[in-house]
Amino acid sequence: MRIIIMAGGSGTRFWPASRESRPKQFLNIIGSRPLIEQTFHRVAPLAGERNIYLVINALHRELTEKIFEQRQVNILAEPVGRNTAPCIGLAAIHLRCEAGDGPMVALPADHFIADEDAFRSTLSAAARLAQAGGIVTIGITPTRPETGYGYILKGAEQEPVLSHPVFRVERFVEKPDLPTAGEYLASGRYLWNSGIFVFTPNTILQEIQQHLPKVYEGLVTLERQLNQAGYQATLEEIYAGWPSISIDYGVMEQTTRPVSVLPESFGWSDVGSWEALYELRREERSEQNNVVEGSALLVNTKSSFIYSQTDRLIATLGLTDVLIVDTLDGVLVADLRRSQEVRRFTEELKKRNWTQFL
Amino acid sequence: MRIIIMAGGSGTRFWPASRESRPKQFLNIIGSRPLIEQTFHRVAPLAGERNIYLVINALHRELTEKIFEQRQVNILAEPVGRNTAPCIGLAAIHLRCEAGDGPMVALPADHFIADEDAFRSTLSAAARLAQAGGIVTIGITPTRPETGYGYILKGAEQEPVLSHPVFRVERFVEKPDLPTAGEYLASGRYLWNSGIFVFTPNTILQEIQQHLPKVYEGLVTLERQLNQAGYQATLEEIYAGWPSISIDYGVMEQTTRPVSVLPESFGWSDVGSWEALYELRREERSEQNNVVEGSALLVNTKSSFIYSQTDRLIATLGLTDVLIVDTLDGVLVADLRRSQEVRRFTEELKKRNWTQFL
Repeated sequence: MRIIIMAGGSGTRFWPASRESRPKQFLNIIGSRPLIEQTFHRVAPLAGERNIYLVINALHRELTEKIFEQRQVNILAEPVGRNTAPCIGLAAIHLRCEAGDGPMVALPADHFIADEDAFRSTLSAAARLAQAGGIVTIGITPTRPETGYGYILKGAEQEPVLSHPVFRVERFVEKPDLPTAGEYLASGRYLWNSGIFVFTPNTILQEIQQHLPKVYEGLVTLERQLNQAGYQATLEEIYAGWPSISIDYGVMEQTTRPVSVLPESFGWSDVGSWEALYELRREERSEQNNVVEGSALLVNTKSSFIYSQTDRLIATLGLTDVLIVDTLDGVLVADLRRSQEVRRFTEELKKRNWTQFL
Repeated sequence: MRIIIMAGGSGTRFWPASRESRPKQFLNIIGSRPLIEQTFHRVAPLAGERNIYLVINALHRELTEKIFEQRQVNILAEPVGRNTAPCIGLAAIHLRCEAGDGPMVALPADHFIADEDAFRSTLSAAARLAQAGGIVTIGITPTRPETGYGYILKGAEQEPVLSHPVFRVERFVEKPDLPTAGEYLASGRYLWNSGIFVFTPNTILQEIQQHLPKVYEGLVTLERQLNQAGYQATLEEIYAGWPSISIDYGVMEQTTRPVSVLPESFGWSDVGSWEALYELRREERSEQNNVVEGSALLVNTKSSFIYSQTDRLIATLGLTDVLIVDTLDGVLVADLRRSQEVRRFTEELKKRNWTQFL
């Protein structure tokens, strides 16, 4: 089994801690190690270090090499981010060439998993299913009418694999509006799309050929250049011409091939916002429900999250549900319950051309 | 006329901008010059630079000399702060020796005055009254049931002086609780104690002799050492032994001498809290009622005050009535309406011995 850790995201919802030069997956926002390193250690027992591929943005090559300097992991650097379809395609041609057509697991670098044994066991079952040419995904049982995720409509239950229940996927659906999300939740027939997919390189490359022919064309050109002198130049040229498109939208919502889903039972979070991180770190909460990382002096403050990357003092007075993120060159103060909107700052900074804060 | 600018305060309600090394009166929190410099320029036309005495804490001698390096002001440095009675006593012995027994105006360095001409005219009238041996104070017409000030109960109206109305002071009262402050406000018979007093050196030294004999004894010792080699050592010894006591409590509330009060009509604020400063700077308010000093990016933020001493970016999202003060080594985030409580931080920092933030 090969594991592709997709680490090309920009992490704008974690601004100002997450920056272009060090996005979310490179931050140790949970525990003492960066999320990408935690993801690596989570899957290493399953596949072995040499069978893990990190797909990163070229901007972060040095950072990645530093984190993994003692490891035998493979690093594929994309010249620019083009979302998950090109990322998975790139990994697939490398795998097909270097390792044959065994199952490949593609998963995001920045998720939190509570039960790592259960997680690995689920991936093993998914890999078993994918070996026969299927597309397999992991679905998360919804607990709220979330509008930030895609959903999967479950179809008929199939034979369990390695004692994991398996369902046919009826269809993948885009991020819904709030009433629709409420209906999905109430129906009990939908799962969240975790963004974790398992298939073989040939399977996914055939799908890309069918549904994303322009991406496929580039992949074929690239595959011919693998291990040759012109590879890097070709890679840059091809990425420049590719659209930015997700595997969900580009392939999963289009495919006519049977897709299976394994409902998750390992405790999952995509750590999608400062508020989600605050919830994940609830064990650290004070009596007043504050989570504090850094040097702080709190007076009459409750249900707040203070996250500091500096040794500056953060003092608060009379606050509830407030998020404070302190970094060397800036501080964010926000309503913690609105932390999904934090991504607006990077948009606004781009508009104003205040690039030093991106 | 001589003017004593009392600049020994610690300004703890303006922490973390106000620090032991540079308290409130040395900050340019309104306009581009420090409050002490604004106070100096406000009274200089009245008395002339040479007749102005700054009483500061010795900690701030260098800072003061730098601000006033082009000026001919007198600087008296107290070895430690002992509140206003010792401060005024010290100035009085210097004045008696250097300038005779003309009227001396004692006023805080950190107040805001809207109409400076009216202010000077009021001080002129007060000085005229004080010349005859009286004690004169300036009273502020209350506009809210403030519990942070002392009050003055007005007595009989007297002859106007330089067309300023004058009242006899019935008595000085301590800071009241809220119900009492409400009664004072409703009665129409009370004024706020502005902390501005006018008398001659002999008058106030006689009062100190009568009501604060220990302070007087020190002053007499000091007076004998004026312009002599042992002065500085004596000053330090005497200050170390003095109690910390205000002129209001130590003299004004005790005196049997007739005291007059001139009600103010010049627009006054003691700039007593971040919220008071926010109100004073209302002309700078944005459409969302935000006052911003520094580099900021505000999203869905209203009625908030952002004050930065750094070039760091301050980003806010979804806030109302919030105060953010950014300094090189710390940031304060508080409910703007509770900014009176900011002084609690310096108490707490002392308790924890986090002296670097004081």
